[in-house]
Amino acid sequence: MTAHDAVEVILAKRDGGTLTDSQIDWVIDAYTRGDVADEQMSALAMAILLNGMQRTEISRWTAAMIASGERMDFSALSRPTADKHSTGGVGDKITLPLAPVVAACGVAVPQLSGRGLGHTGGTLDKLESIPGWRAALSNAEMMAQLESVGAVICAAGDGLAPADKKLYALRDVTGTVEAIPLIASSIMSKKIAEGTGALVLDVKVGSGAFMKDVDDARELAEVMVGLGTDAGVRTVALLTDMSTPLGLTAGNAIEVAESVDVLAGGGPADVVELTVALAREMLTAAGREDVDPAETLTDGTAMDAWKAMIRAQDGDPDAALPTARESHVVTAPATGVLTRLDAMAVGMAAWRLGAGRARKEDPVQAGAGVVWHARPGDAVTAGEPLFTLLTDEPARFERALASLEGGYDVGSSDEVVAQPLVIDRIGG
Amino acid sequence: MTAHDAVEVILAKRDGGTLTDSQIDWVIDAYTRGDVADEQMSALAMAILLNGMQRTEISRWTAAMIASGERMDFSALSRPTADKHSTGGVGDKITLPLAPVVAACGVAVPQLSGRGLGHTGGTLDKLESIPGWRAALSNAEMMAQLESVGAVICAAGDGLAPADKKLYALRDVTGTVEAIPLIASSIMSKKIAEGTGALVLDVKVGSGAFMKDVDDARELAEVMVGLGTDAGVRTVALLTDMSTPLGLTAGNAIEVAESVDVLAGGGPADVVELTVALAREMLTAAGREDVDPAETLTDGTAMDAWKAMIRAQDGDPDAALPTARESHVVTAPATGVLTRLDAMAVGMAAWRLGAGRARKEDPVQAGAGVVWHARPGDAVTAGEPLFTLLTDEPARFERALASLEGGYDVGSSDEVVAQPLVIDRIGG
Repeated sequence: MTAHDAVEVILAKRDGGTLTDSQIDWVIDAYTRGDVADEQMSALAMAILLNGMQRTEISRWTAAMIASGERMDFSALSRPTADKHSTGGVGDKITLPLAPVVAACGVAVPQLSGRGLGHTGGTLDKLESIPGWRAALSNAEMMAQLESVGAVICAAGDGLAPADKKLYALRDVTGTVEAIPLIASSIMSKKIAEGTGALVLDVKVGSGAFMKDVDDARELAEVMVGLGTDAGVRTVALLTDMSTPLGLTAGNAIEVAESVDVLAGGGPADVVELTVALAREMLTAAGREDVDPAETLTDGTAMDAWKAMIRAQDGDPDAALPTARESHVVTAPATGVLTRLDAMAVGMAAWRLGAGRARKEDPVQAGAGVVWHARPGDAVTAGEPLFTLLTDEPARFERALASLEGGYDVGSSDEVVAQPLVIDRIGG
Repeated sequence: MTAHDAVEVILAKRDGGTLTDSQIDWVIDAYTRGDVADEQMSALAMAILLNGMQRTEISRWTAAMIASGERMDFSALSRPTADKHSTGGVGDKITLPLAPVVAACGVAVPQLSGRGLGHTGGTLDKLESIPGWRAALSNAEMMAQLESVGAVICAAGDGLAPADKKLYALRDVTGTVEAIPLIASSIMSKKIAEGTGALVLDVKVGSGAFMKDVDDARELAEVMVGLGTDAGVRTVALLTDMSTPLGLTAGNAIEVAESVDVLAGGGPADVVELTVALAREMLTAAGREDVDPAETLTDGTAMDAWKAMIRAQDGDPDAALPTARESHVVTAPATGVLTRLDAMAVGMAAWRLGAGRARKEDPVQAGAGVVWHARPGDAVTAGEPLFTLLTDEPARFERALASLEGGYDVGSSDEVVAQPLVIDRIGG
């Protein structure tokens, strides 16, 4: 590898230039080894955020992050693989029903997930509310479970894209998170290294999402679809609404319960709709567009796959889920129709109740969260329950209630703005 | 002091906003204490470099850096004080004759200097070639010498603007040196904390200077003059040419010898011109525009002040200066007129011969450097000496010669572009 100098690379990007392949390969490798210091990489990240990157640079940056660690390979499996990634939202439990639905259709789902930080929940945090369930699997266990059950949701090992792990932690404390080249390469380096054959991206847009603006979300989706396609992964993205939270719950155990409702053929209509839409994309990308995923929710096969997936990771799918020790009900202020429910307000409330964490070493409460008893367009009655807040620590109610304030409106039905759940589709 | 968060401050500047006084005070204080990490400050520095700062922000930033350390006070002296700062150039020994000239005119010069890094020399490195001379003085010694001799050139203590010291080292390795707000606040925080009543800035422009472009140099000068004036220091700046090196020497002992020539009433015309021009500005800013500094070079009073200044710091002004063990002569390639002599080429050659350092812990050679035997406009004869290269280590000649290559032209007298030494004057 050609040796470069950290300042040379920083100056090239600072002054609006395009980094060479050799500069990118060197800086990622040297940063992973510790030869480029954190203060140098953060200056480079800020220059990337403010001056941008060409598509070719993002592609090389992603490849260099993949090359910093191991790559997994599922080509020995007897079935095709497809994975999904969501950019994160409030009440976004979709991975939980989705993985078993797709597995029940004959496509294996190797889902490497993370824990939550801030107002968006983490898939592993939700599953860890199931008694006995464990997130950590060896590569061999993961491969065996994919072959036998067809779905795995587990923690990503330290071996995949270690450069990304280090850079992500740095960006978090240096104000350099919101750079599309860095977001796209962070997500895609892990997903490409994971070795999936097909990938569906759920890019969230709206108040509760990382991307508040549809144009930014579309740009991020296009960049990620390009990166996946360049790496030989069949990649498609859906832009989906996150101005309103998904379903009727935001938390950990309560989102598992709602997911099980969906797998049993019930559950909120929006959660069912998005699960089926994403499953269809995953199946199509994996060459199985002939199968109808919706049927698995009514014929019991998705529920069977769910139970097998939970049991394979030592969880008891039939055990009672933990519940919060304290609850507080917020009633509707008027009779009418819920015209608006803000995803960020709900997400912040759930976070403050203990469902999420402020620092990555914090614990989460399994039973904490928010249940809303109506979705926009639903009728509400003055004095009847509108929200139930759940936590083990009643001192948390006050700040959670403050988060909810101004986060919803009750009015008349003509004030409801109908918003499609799936806003756009990119790639494929 | 109001508590802020490093990411909050970074985001404000990243997104093009104006930092509040409270944010600036906090971030400088927290960085000095170590509560804001290097990787956070480097991201902020890059955002400042790319998004700029308002004059009010630069002023507050400077004040916060001054507040991070001690302030000196010369108000008890029996004479007024004036200081000079040069942004750095090749062959720029002007401080050496200037301080005694101004002292001989009755104005005290408290010159806190640094060592060189890269192709520009350091005033302390030059003076340290004088046998016995020491750079480190206590504040009490400095004050006593200012009263008795009227001039001090010594090392800045660690107590002045420690935030700047830390930030300067960080900028050096993170590609964030070339930000006018950061350059201006770095220079001015130290000069204001030093407590001088008047300040003359020599802002260099051209190939051998930090600022290659006259508009950038003018902007830097205007910002610095504004900062000084706001802080109650009578401040004026001269923009001076650094496309050609000053005098006929670049090195350490050889620049001391040239300075002594000037103090004895001789020396190169450009060194005399700039010394007198800067002295006149310092005297005017200190309220002594009635005195003619040029006279001190012919009546022996500047030489007397020089010898007293050197002796006060244990140096022997009459001792022989160290010489380099090896020399190499470059002859003129043709007969004609020297039409161009590039400051950067000469500076790089002197540096590579051992006169300067690449890292701040490196030693310098007292005898190393470059002597040029003609200045632009002077006649040269083919085969006669044009440059003499000096070093203790002959292995250094090869790279020094490579630096000089293409750095000068011999042609006809009508090809000489006359360039004024003092390009502009700002403030006052």
